[in-house]
Amino acid sequence: MSATQLLSPSKERLRLWLRLLKASRGIETALRENLRSDFGSTLPRFDVLAALSRHSDGLRMSQLSGVLRVSNGNVTGIVERLVEEGQVVRVPVPGDRRASLVRLTTKGQEQCAIQAAAHEGWIDAMLGAFSAQEAQDLAQRLDQMVQKSNDGK
Amino acid sequence: MSATQLLSPSKERLRLWLRLLKASRGIETALRENLRSDFGSTLPRFDVLAALSRHSDGLRMSQLSGVLRVSNGNVTGIVERLVEEGQVVRVPVPGDRRASLVRLTTKGQEQCAIQAAAHEGWIDAMLGAFSAQEAQDLAQRLDQMVQKSNDGK
Repeated sequence: MSATQLLSPSKERLRLWLRLLKASRGIETALRENLRSDFGSTLPRFDVLAALSRHSDGLRMSQLSGVLRVSNGNVTGIVERLVEEGQVVRVPVPGDRRASLVRLTTKGQEQCAIQAAAHEGWIDAMLGAFSAQEAQDLAQRLDQMVQKSNDGK
Repeated sequence: MSATQLLSPSKERLRLWLRLLKASRGIETALRENLRSDFGSTLPRFDVLAALSRHSDGLRMSQLSGVLRVSNGNVTGIVERLVEEGQVVRVPVPGDRRASLVRLTTKGQEQCAIQAAAHEGWIDAMLGAFSAQEAQDLAQRLDQMVQKSNDGK
């Protein structure tokens, strides 16, 4: 690292925050563009598929909304579209006539695996400057920070 | 740091990305809550005031939209409200009858300074686990990463 003059801790942390925000926005924008160009898909759609792939027993619509990072994605619309495409199915919940579970089909599982592998590759390229050990250390520090800020206020 | 088992580089980077996203969302949520509770304000409003404070000659509406991080903030509505509150004024642009510049009033400058100091303090507390030097190093690495990912694709 070059010997850049050090500002006060609070100014350096403010700068770090602006860089964190810029980096996470930049990565998110790149992911959106890649999903669109390579799969004709979107981030909320990918999030839905990924959530369902982690729950092979299926999820209720309400659980799916909760799992979604992007709350402004229209879960109902996304699921309807995925049903039309044969990537997910709705299955009844025994003993609850009003409820249904959403579950990946084999086709959906395959699509999800392909997109998840591509997603991991994009992130790997974008965060390639961090070694595995550095990535782990930084992830742990960010995790502690999030927990700490949740404890406050 | 505890000796957590190291996954493959791409898995550790994927985990880092999820933590980065979670941390930046968490900080943003805390900032929104603090601005609301302490100043009855919002992040887009704060962004507008902060942008204007960096440009004492004033900014055009189009420049203001460009500067805003949060593009879904309604710049026109925010500026109108700030005009009503006496925090900003619209001044005509010499030689361009259709255009106007938006500029902070003295009251707006004072409000902005108070809120910016509070904002810096909140960030300072949330990122307190990073020393000034660590914050600077990490900010530089994130910056290089963003530039690199802009070079690709």
